[in-house]
Amino acid sequence: MTDVAAVSDSAGPVTLGKLDDQGRALLFTDARTANTFADTPVSDEELAAIWELAKWAPTAANTQPLRVLYVRPGEGRDRLVKHMSEGNRAKTAAAPAVAVLAVDTEFHEHIPALLPFRPELKGRFDGQDELRAKHAGFNGALQAGYFILAVRAAGLAAGPMLGFDGPGIDREFFADRPWKTILVVNIGRPGTDPWFDRLPRLTHEDYVEYV
Amino acid sequence: MTDVAAVSDSAGPVTLGKLDDQGRALLFTDARTANTFADTPVSDEELAAIWELAKWAPTAANTQPLRVLYVRPGEGRDRLVKHMSEGNRAKTAAAPAVAVLAVDTEFHEHIPALLPFRPELKGRFDGQDELRAKHAGFNGALQAGYFILAVRAAGLAAGPMLGFDGPGIDREFFADRPWKTILVVNIGRPGTDPWFDRLPRLTHEDYVEYV
Repeated sequence: MTDVAAVSDSAGPVTLGKLDDQGRALLFTDARTANTFADTPVSDEELAAIWELAKWAPTAANTQPLRVLYVRPGEGRDRLVKHMSEGNRAKTAAAPAVAVLAVDTEFHEHIPALLPFRPELKGRFDGQDELRAKHAGFNGALQAGYFILAVRAAGLAAGPMLGFDGPGIDREFFADRPWKTILVVNIGRPGTDPWFDRLPRLTHEDYVEYV
Repeated sequence: MTDVAAVSDSAGPVTLGKLDDQGRALLFTDARTANTFADTPVSDEELAAIWELAKWAPTAANTQPLRVLYVRPGEGRDRLVKHMSEGNRAKTAAAPAVAVLAVDTEFHEHIPALLPFRPELKGRFDGQDELRAKHAGFNGALQAGYFILAVRAAGLAAGPMLGFDGPGIDREFFADRPWKTILVVNIGRPGTDPWFDRLPRLTHEDYVEYV
């Protein structure tokens, strides 16, 4: 990292500076979605390390609605694969680890612990199913974005997928709790021919404006 | 970055490895949401550099629904501030740059260009307003997560906010196009007392499970 400066405040020093070229390549400019994986196992410690990064990135009112179910090879993975879309089954069945990302639709129960200076915010969500679904959906997806980049930061390749039967996964794994699946991410080291040719991006003029 | 390896495939080398401690501190473990900003200007080149990182992270079917309006000090910022919640007005009025993140609800028009091997996917979204809103909402929020981390990677501090009148911002800036505001992010260098004490995170046992 170049141009690093530590800024001190009451909460301790905070690192500022530009991410160096290797870091940019790893997370953004050179990273790819993996479609095949090597047999190399992914340990529980490696999986835990992903969330130890992702958890620090911000959510509205610090609500942190995202939950993670890590699925390993064996019976758990078999139970998951049958709920994936046909085109995603083979690659999920071959991934050494899979993360089912879900949102806790009762995330508001944690507000008094997570936002100790404003515990009364919980009351705004009590009985408000639609408001909670909207808040959890947006903030959970933000956190899913952090999660994908954290997989890469942890030295692993991510293969995020939206093709699955969400209610089926919820019944299979979350029957006893109010979690709703939002994304499934294969995790491992790249296998043979792991990625497609890179797809185009919209140009700067297409999607960025200034006023 | 430690443990770096280049994996070659038809699309060229891809960088793999663990993000080093400085990079982790900068993006995740040590980064904070800024609530005050120094007067130091943020240049258009710095703003453009954020999106040049964020744009590479993945979206479903490469649809890239996120759009960015960068608002600079002056008349543009005045027009934005009046649509912010009262608690967010002073800090937005003092931020040297602000990004209004929106989703293009007609993102599907770009599918033939962005997914050239499957242009017919556009047809699945034609006339399907609800499906498009759901797809744009989820993928736009994923991209907003990438954007916040890209602000940090670009050496700037981010202050994301959900407290605003979205339809008001849409009428103010996007009256001529189908963009819907999803998040507003103050951008700059930290000012005086820029952050609160760090808030707690859920423990590993609270939100991660294994099967």
